[in-house]
Amino acid sequence: MNTFHEIPVIRITDGKETEFIDCIASEIAFTLIVNNQNLVSLLCSPSELDNMAVGFLLSEGFLNNRESLKSISVDEENFTVNIELDNLPENWDTLFNKKTITSGCGQGITFTDADALRSNTPNKKNPIRISTTKIRNLLRLFRSSSELYLKTGGVHSAALATADEILLFSEDIGRHNAVDKLIGKAFLKGMSMHDKLLLSSGRISGEIMTKVIRNNIPVLITRTAPTCMSISYAEDHGVTLIGFARGNRMNIYTHPLGIQLC
Amino acid sequence: MNTFHEIPVIRITDGKETEFIDCIASEIAFTLIVNNQNLVSLLCSPSELDNMAVGFLLSEGFLNNRESLKSISVDEENFTVNIELDNLPENWDTLFNKKTITSGCGQGITFTDADALRSNTPNKKNPIRISTTKIRNLLRLFRSSSELYLKTGGVHSAALATADEILLFSEDIGRHNAVDKLIGKAFLKGMSMHDKLLLSSGRISGEIMTKVIRNNIPVLITRTAPTCMSISYAEDHGVTLIGFARGNRMNIYTHPLGIQLC
Repeated sequence: MNTFHEIPVIRITDGKETEFIDCIASEIAFTLIVNNQNLVSLLCSPSELDNMAVGFLLSEGFLNNRESLKSISVDEENFTVNIELDNLPENWDTLFNKKTITSGCGQGITFTDADALRSNTPNKKNPIRISTTKIRNLLRLFRSSSELYLKTGGVHSAALATADEILLFSEDIGRHNAVDKLIGKAFLKGMSMHDKLLLSSGRISGEIMTKVIRNNIPVLITRTAPTCMSISYAEDHGVTLIGFARGNRMNIYTHPLGIQLC
Repeated sequence: MNTFHEIPVIRITDGKETEFIDCIASEIAFTLIVNNQNLVSLLCSPSELDNMAVGFLLSEGFLNNRESLKSISVDEENFTVNIELDNLPENWDTLFNKKTITSGCGQGITFTDADALRSNTPNKKNPIRISTTKIRNLLRLFRSSSELYLKTGGVHSAALATADEILLFSEDIGRHNAVDKLIGKAFLKGMSMHDKLLLSSGRISGEIMTKVIRNNIPVLITRTAPTCMSISYAEDHGVTLIGFARGNRMNIYTHPLGIQLC
């Protein structure tokens, strides 16, 4: 499946028309089937559907450890991802009836409610030691990593990094999807997340923050703005939230001790 | 309810820390209750909840005409919006079990499926006559209209305009929400949409385009990118889709005859 298509477009420049071929980000719907039950349909860029499905289940609390994941199969013809889980959560059946449409930037859905999240233990962590120069370098590298963005101008990206380098990178037309793909990829590779930085190209809503909290990621850095809800969740759960990280500036909204600037 | 909060933040500039008070966009969850049944919870900026609720119902096809809307009441203390509809769609009960998580930029939800939309009649319309200079002026005015964006840097906006002026404006932390608020506002004011331009600050996914199609808006203009799905829907339903409208340039993706550049 192509992550972009070439489409003829009329460009108007100074009132003059020219025709050219533009690269447009693809968007597909796939159905996520868990233990033979249709959980939900997801719209996303047609890449990393396995990571996306696993990341979504992790972020929503349906999946907690590697042992529970018995199998994944992606059917690219019928646009389905079949996942078999060993231990379904006790409240699995009722979860289908719970849905909250989030704002993020679209009207996101989550099966999570904030009360359930509040019972999580805040992360206990050693601060990540990093210089502001390194943060700037990471963000520069992050921005130039998205081939699909460079082609289409229409996607978001997310990365998992140490102070020194970007380890994993995902991109998607959906800001939340990019984070889910990244989290799913890290999980499937067995990569720890509790000692990494998450970089996101987009604004941080409460829902993005719940993904970060559920997966014990200690530091989240974005070039743009957080919402009040994301700040409140980050405060409660020990996440260091850095916004408007641009050039030589950044804002630390919560838990400044989570990073040690050097 | 405040649409933003002032929160103390640590700013790092050139490695030096200063403390300041930042304006952060609020995010709340409210429950949309239709005929005493909880339809869904929505996360959005705490403004125009009545418009948001009505716009959501319009965009999802639950509400089609002014007569069906018997009452709206917003309970700001309990974060609920109660709506009474006269004629529920025949498939109302089954709609609760249908959900597609969209990508947009978050993981949006829609109860609509594309097949249902396909049976809609494409808009039959007279082209909107507008000069490229006027488009530029509209977009400049549009960008400077968002007080909340200027304060927080973290919201999206949508506007309904003629060739000469912006008539209605809405803003929200959610890109889709801003469109729903705008559509709800136009509907409640009894303003026609079939002869207007919709301006959106965000990228255009299939879901945003379904909102535009359902409400018979003939022209959609954004500063950023559309997805393949939105182009395909626009093509099928006679919507003129203009993207990357910046400075003296813009791209016309579909139905160039929907506007008459002069």
